[in-house]
Amino acid sequence: MRTHRSSFRAFTWAIGAAASVALAGVPALAKTHEVSMTAVETDVIIDGGGEKYAAWTFNGTMPGPVVRVTEGDVIKFTLTNPATNKNPHAMDFHAAEIDFLANYKAINAGETISYTFTAKKPGIFFYHCGAPPMIQHVARGMFGAIIVDPKDPKALPKADREYVLIQSEHYKNPNDVQAMFDRKFDGVMFNGGIFKYHPFVTGGGKLDAKPGERVRIYFVNAGPNEFSAFHPIGEIWDNVYESGNPANNLKGVQTYVVGPGSAATFDVVVESAGAYPLVTHSLTGALRGAIAVLLASPDAKPQPLMPMVPWELPAK
Amino acid sequence: MRTHRSSFRAFTWAIGAAASVALAGVPALAKTHEVSMTAVETDVIIDGGGEKYAAWTFNGTMPGPVVRVTEGDVIKFTLTNPATNKNPHAMDFHAAEIDFLANYKAINAGETISYTFTAKKPGIFFYHCGAPPMIQHVARGMFGAIIVDPKDPKALPKADREYVLIQSEHYKNPNDVQAMFDRKFDGVMFNGGIFKYHPFVTGGGKLDAKPGERVRIYFVNAGPNEFSAFHPIGEIWDNVYESGNPANNLKGVQTYVVGPGSAATFDVVVESAGAYPLVTHSLTGALRGAIAVLLASPDAKPQPLMPMVPWELPAK
Amino acid sequence: MRTHRSSFRAFTWAIGAAASVALAGVPALAKTHEVSMTAVETDVIIDGGGEKYAAWTFNGTMPGPVVRVTEGDVIKFTLTNPATNKNPHAMDFHAAEIDFLANYKAINAGETISYTFTAKKPGIFFYHCGAPPMIQHVARGMFGAIIVDPKDPKALPKADREYVLIQSEHYKNPNDVQAMFDRKFDGVMFNGGIFKYHPFVTGGGKLDAKPGERVRIYFVNAGPNEFSAFHPIGEIWDNVYESGNPANNLKGVQTYVVGPGSAATFDVVVESAGAYPLVTHSLTGALRGAIAVLLASPDAKPQPLMPMVPWELPAK
Repeated sequence: MRTHRSSFRAFTWAIGAAASVALAGVPALAKTHEVSMTAVETDVIIDGGGEKYAAWTFNGTMPGPVVRVTEGDVIKFTLTNPATNKNPHAMDFHAAEIDFLANYKAINAGETISYTFTAKKPGIFFYHCGAPPMIQHVARGMFGAIIVDPKDPKALPKADREYVLIQSEHYKNPNDVQAMFDRKFDGVMFNGGIFKYHPFVTGGGKLDAKPGERVRIYFVNAGPNEFSAFHPIGEIWDNVYESGNPANNLKGVQTYVVGPGSAATFDVVVESAGAYPLVTHSLTGALRGAIAVLLASPDAKPQPLMPMVPWELPAK
Repeated sequence: MRTHRSSFRAFTWAIGAAASVALAGVPALAKTHEVSMTAVETDVIIDGGGEKYAAWTFNGTMPGPVVRVTEGDVIKFTLTNPATNKNPHAMDFHAAEIDFLANYKAINAGETISYTFTAKKPGIFFYHCGAPPMIQHVARGMFGAIIVDPKDPKALPKADREYVLIQSEHYKNPNDVQAMFDRKFDGVMFNGGIFKYHPFVTGGGKLDAKPGERVRIYFVNAGPNEFSAFHPIGEIWDNVYESGNPANNLKGVQTYVVGPGSAATFDVVVESAGAYPLVTHSLTGALRGAIAVLLASPDAKPQPLMPMVPWELPAK
Repeated sequence: MRTHRSSFRAFTWAIGAAASVALAGVPALAKTHEVSMTAVETDVIIDGGGEKYAAWTFNGTMPGPVVRVTEGDVIKFTLTNPATNKNPHAMDFHAAEIDFLANYKAINAGETISYTFTAKKPGIFFYHCGAPPMIQHVARGMFGAIIVDPKDPKALPKADREYVLIQSEHYKNPNDVQAMFDRKFDGVMFNGGIFKYHPFVTGGGKLDAKPGERVRIYFVNAGPNEFSAFHPIGEIWDNVYESGNPANNLKGVQTYVVGPGSAATFDVVVESAGAYPLVTHSLTGALRGAIAVLLASPDAKPQPLMPMVPWELPAK
């Protein structure tokens, strides 16, 4: 066992890179990752107009940081709930197989909790706060993704680019828990923004690719309630992997249902230059924010694992 | 053909046991089961506070009894609608492949209907009343599960424990059919109870297991309308079988979508002692009743097929 | 390459037949199909009472014509938006893999757009108008299906009969876009009609079959919002193919979830004469229109690909 230490306070994408290093022909040794997150109750920007939302987050962003490990790795996780917060918080990793009571319990402001788990099954998994009322903690932004790469590096076709997209419903009034129970959402977001990856929206980004590249989308549906019908406009998914597990491989799928609290891996090989909006085909969701444009262009620049960047708002 | 007679008026779990008897190396002979149910319009208790609900049921409980047979078996089914009832009732077995008109038709109070079918396909199947308005007959409690074990006893890994869980929406006013059409449910239940398997609720039960055991959940979504995202908190499904058919095997799934009127088989191997709440991850459902705690403990007692027991209410 | 020209103004089912012609042992040559459609804003009849609905359509019917080609074929598509229309319209083929911006853009009344694509992946695919507000263009009727038969004629078991069924929500007021966003639908339709294939409804049709035949349903969920739980009452799906791709084969499924904007192929071998209603088991949908009766009878007549015929209304 080697130990790989990293703080997830900042976006340290290097973990992903480090995890993939292995001598040719030699099975990767299981690693230990020390992962720390802090519950941060803070305003975040959720659209290109600079609209602020009183979010509850992991590490100050909605969603929280991506955690990336390899099948068999050990995660030593610590959650801090600073004394300056007003609410209890908790952490539930869908990639873990551990006692709910001891590990996922809510801690009060000023407390810290640690637990350790082994990521035994490969895939893309949801993580979220489970403190009551959980529906509100998820709706307000306490969610993210953990990628568990298969131990066998050939278990999946090699991807040229990778993105993480997390769908969630937006409830305008963060304190109206009844609206959350009544499923009266006001919008649907990818990675915490309304039309966040839409080039025609002020400050909106995009997902870049070159024609011919295999683009892998790690897709998570945070809910808290709604089902997603994930579809690439102008394209067809070459492969869909339920829960991201290489054993669950569907071919040539136009739209795939991902339930709330679930996730799947989607590969698309975009053959020609152009715009390919990724959406939930439940149109009430897509047309109220859940559109991410994949832009294929020969001069696309290399990109980090995901563009979970803050809004690039114009100077005022 | 042998004939195995049993009344489903009481819970005769022995059917399950009988069906699994076969001489080693000798293919099981198809059996004939005489299954009788009675439509009973009665109050049932739906939560730990003793709250009563004016249910319509098969045999007086919500859900009705579990029927268990082996692939290839013949079921001779009789439904009685006693003269004391006020409504027509009917029976639709999803495991059957027979004419809808002749067999699933509604019979009036005072009438009886019989039909015979062969359970040709293995799996876990929904059964329910189809009398109009069907949405109300299902919502009020006329549903249950039939397990059709594969003829090949090695088609599925051997389970150490088995449970049946049936999700359904709770509409407080059993006569407000419009609320059912409008999907304005007031709660979501597993096996006819709000938080029925939640140790912290008065009279709530739990699902027991020992660490290391393979626990098999036969999961049915009765609806009548909503989709389920079935997830084990603190665990990952080792295997999911769509419709319970061994041919449809997904591996390492965090959450699986089960539509209304559908069912699937879920295996989980819980490795360490602890609490693992099973939920629909559509949180508006989970937090309004659809939580069943799987409690893994070294001293877990043996358990019948399912704990579809009445509420254990404290003496008043 | 050969070119096969056809107008889709009328229902020219012959395309399906032509596409299946191939010399034994000789791989089929890719064909080119010239497919033309016209956006037609017109009233259509949506139930057996003659109720009219101010639809927007492809070619004057809801749904539009079925397009049928073989994997590898080229489609040269032209959409005409006549000057007599009042709205922009567009066409998005889920079977295509082409730039969204250039090809699926909305054209104004009086304009025409053409584009070409190769149907690279086999299956059953949705097509629809994508002009804003897309939710309204889909809800008002601008949708249909394209079948891409596998190049290998043995990739799927031979079907004896084939039908196309397209589910969509009915919003009574075609101009109440807010009701569409709020998912307040007033009914659910198969092929543009409330109980269109229900023999007990005036003018209702049915789907015919002979006992023992393998009946293939190409099922599309147009949405615009709701998920479908597709189920054959009195039967079990022998095979389900996600997105219609032969590689994605589930066996013995009672109910399968098809998201909005998705599609799947369903095979059922009905062994005995009788009525087998096909429904979405989300009962609020089934009981408000989404029932199609498959009637198995020894004297069933041959039938075209699908009975997407107008209502046969009685003379008044």
